[in-house]
Amino acid sequence: MDVIVVGSVGIDTIETPTEKRESILGGSASYACAASSYFSNVGMVGVVGTDFPKNFRDVYESFNVDLAGLQTVEGDTFRWSGVYQENMDNRETISTDLNVFETFSPELPDNYKSCPYVFLANIAPELQLHVLDQVQSPKFVLADTMDLWINIAVEPLKQVISRVDMMTLNESEARHLTGEHALLRAARSLLEMGPTYVLIKKGEHGSILFSKDRIFLMPAFPLEEVEDPTGAGDTFAGGFMGSFAASGQTSEEAIRKAMVYGSVVASFGVEKFSLDRLQEVNIEEIEERAYLFREMLRID
Amino acid sequence: MDVIVVGSVGIDTIETPTEKRESILGGSASYACAASSYFSNVGMVGVVGTDFPKNFRDVYESFNVDLAGLQTVEGDTFRWSGVYQENMDNRETISTDLNVFETFSPELPDNYKSCPYVFLANIAPELQLHVLDQVQSPKFVLADTMDLWINIAVEPLKQVISRVDMMTLNESEARHLTGEHALLRAARSLLEMGPTYVLIKKGEHGSILFSKDRIFLMPAFPLEEVEDPTGAGDTFAGGFMGSFAASGQTSEEAIRKAMVYGSVVASFGVEKFSLDRLQEVNIEEIEERAYLFREMLRID
Repeated sequence: MDVIVVGSVGIDTIETPTEKRESILGGSASYACAASSYFSNVGMVGVVGTDFPKNFRDVYESFNVDLAGLQTVEGDTFRWSGVYQENMDNRETISTDLNVFETFSPELPDNYKSCPYVFLANIAPELQLHVLDQVQSPKFVLADTMDLWINIAVEPLKQVISRVDMMTLNESEARHLTGEHALLRAARSLLEMGPTYVLIKKGEHGSILFSKDRIFLMPAFPLEEVEDPTGAGDTFAGGFMGSFAASGQTSEEAIRKAMVYGSVVASFGVEKFSLDRLQEVNIEEIEERAYLFREMLRID
Repeated sequence: MDVIVVGSVGIDTIETPTEKRESILGGSASYACAASSYFSNVGMVGVVGTDFPKNFRDVYESFNVDLAGLQTVEGDTFRWSGVYQENMDNRETISTDLNVFETFSPELPDNYKSCPYVFLANIAPELQLHVLDQVQSPKFVLADTMDLWINIAVEPLKQVISRVDMMTLNESEARHLTGEHALLRAARSLLEMGPTYVLIKKGEHGSILFSKDRIFLMPAFPLEEVEDPTGAGDTFAGGFMGSFAASGQTSEEAIRKAMVYGSVVASFGVEKFSLDRLQEVNIEEIEERAYLFREMLRID
């Protein structure tokens, strides 16, 4: 296994200004594993209920995602429902049913414990720490989080941040956690907590990578049509981790290149609901868009 | 003369969350000429009243701005007053007194008519057309506009767009003028009106350059502290035009490089009110920040 992803598996109901889709495959682990699978062998750590449809499992298998770390327990799968406002600028959560996710404790199969690349998607920081206690000197750990944990579990979250190589947050979370409005100061304050890299996500405006002495500015790939932005951040992170692992390098240059692939896979992902677009796209199309994208960023 | 700038000269009163400054030098032509002056000989076309302070004229002279095109007429100079909300995300106009600007008609001194680079800053489209009627086959014309003209003078504005090499608008103006929400479509629709380039400004998120077959994504230089964002777009445009003219080239590559300089000069400009920071900065500091900035954008 090159990459393991620990996160949520969910059944989503999503309404956009033009369409409503019920009970589709979602969750951070779903998006991240699918995105990672283009570049690396990836294993999923998560939980589903006994109601989890066979055809969703088939989707994972179409991406060759290893499911040894996916627990199935008595009960219902995590469900989330949300509505996007006009222009997709904002979304409102309609309902969250944790179900089997409420008592989830991520347990790694033995062959996952030596996996070199670990993505801790947005779950409770205590669970992220529990995963970190099980892995054996990984080469690179990326962790994500959300506002909820800043509000109710800030101490374990800070422990997570101190133990990972790269921490990713969106702009408002970075400000909220550090109390600094200026992004540069917020990032510096996060770097002081321990990680080598801090990646601030700015949605349709791209992302910024901070390290001790350097900054990398990464716009988002421009799209004509976004059908469903759900999971874009996880798709980015999964594509990033998969291609970074595949590069075998650890330099910041390799991280910057992997961010290009993360952006490109995410740009495909949002063109359709759920994993629908990723199921259609092949690595040649990803390479082609990555080339186009780098042309859009080139100055010389 | 390498570059002429046609725009407003104003006396501004600006309030930010931390400071209020009264009767400071402002106006699109002021910012754009100062920014351009680092790279090229620049002449200003505008109007001031007899109340225009001698020390503001001295500021222009400290930048070596040619003032042969600056009319002085009986009456008061254009005045604008605005308040920035918390975090500088939004600003509210408190008052606009057109004064001598109301009857302004830009008349070019003879030696300006053959100037190769022309920046038509945001003024009434009819006046921009009047300038275009006076210039003799310029090499490159950039025009800016604002929502007001889309509302009250859309036909002359479309004529302007059809006659310039590059049109610049912010995101919401581009959407408003074209009726297209998706930025790619809005840009395509603007390109169909005639210009070779459309530059969409996204404020703190940078800008995007569109041409028929290419897109260039330009983030903004990240700043710790912004004291006053007034005039940032005009400073960008001025720095862009000045360095583009100095390059002597006309390729899209030269445009991309000039956009780096435009961004850098604008990033200095917003660090203090009015032209205060630009008066301190020298070309070496601009080159140094431009180098840093390009390092922040480099992928290989």
